[in-house]
Amino acid sequence: MIDTEYIKQTIRSVPDWPEKGVMFRDITPLFQNPKALRATMDAFVHRYFDAKVDLIAGIDARGFLLGVTVAYELNLPFVPVRKKGKLPYKTISESYQLEYGEATIEMHTDAVTAGQRVVLFDDLIATGGTMLAANSLLKRLGADVIEAAAIIDLPDLKGSEKLEQAGVPVFALASFGGH
Amino acid sequence: MIDTEYIKQTIRSVPDWPEKGVMFRDITPLFQNPKALRATMDAFVHRYFDAKVDLIAGIDARGFLLGVTVAYELNLPFVPVRKKGKLPYKTISESYQLEYGEATIEMHTDAVTAGQRVVLFDDLIATGGTMLAANSLLKRLGADVIEAAAIIDLPDLKGSEKLEQAGVPVFALASFGGH
Repeated sequence: MIDTEYIKQTIRSVPDWPEKGVMFRDITPLFQNPKALRATMDAFVHRYFDAKVDLIAGIDARGFLLGVTVAYELNLPFVPVRKKGKLPYKTISESYQLEYGEATIEMHTDAVTAGQRVVLFDDLIATGGTMLAANSLLKRLGADVIEAAAIIDLPDLKGSEKLEQAGVPVFALASFGGH
Repeated sequence: MIDTEYIKQTIRSVPDWPEKGVMFRDITPLFQNPKALRATMDAFVHRYFDAKVDLIAGIDARGFLLGVTVAYELNLPFVPVRKKGKLPYKTISESYQLEYGEATIEMHTDAVTAGQRVVLFDDLIATGGTMLAANSLLKRLGADVIEAAAIIDLPDLKGSEKLEQAGVPVFALASFGGH
């Protein structure tokens, strides 16, 4: 069994970042700890070993830290969901609201073929805006997101709830109260 | 033996991106091809298996696609070199010139301990500006970059030459003329 409590203990909580009142959950110490890094990746690899996954997608940039290793271990393709202006080929895009302003993410139109079963990775689920937008992109390309996977869920911010309501199951290794 | 010619053939060349006259080397088809993805990672894993590496560093964001899997396979720590404003803890930063304007990258001050032997990953070496700045950050933290590793080298842009002159050996899986 993977010791998710051990993984959770390697996450550093940084108060008042990026602004006053926010408790930021910092995964850099997890990646700096080879045992926690290995346990984290293996937790996902074991979970998706028999799940008939066709494709792993990872969200720019911290989702890249997770998705590629899982794809490598399971011999699956990896595709990036990127911030606007980073992908050189034909793209589709999706915009979503942030607390202040708007963000846009993009995917290559040839990243996915219709009917593929996709696991979508990011490091953390907060309000769920990025994951929901990425799910929309993947749907528009005909794919089926069978799970949104992350290291951390912040359930008080209701992102995981919104994803479940949108028909996307959520899996996270650790959960923190507050935001 | 890893078939680097096979890997190279999966890289897509996109003309006139991000601006007219530039031939962009797009690694997304490589990551979408499980055989090429596996060969790419394994090439680095084999290379550094016996190299007494202490730490893997990866540059935001495409360097994240490479470094973490190598760290996972070799049971090494992974640390990110990030664009400005993304790291929540104590940081040091380094600015460098771009064709137009300037960019800044940062590392956590506790990312490295003095004397550690580091392999530094990015997807591509062009003018070498980012790699050289990352090397400076790692040096300031007392680390020794034993190699700068990438999928692609563009030797005409002289980045790999500058890195070698700065005492940083360079290793890339594929080389393309022009820019």
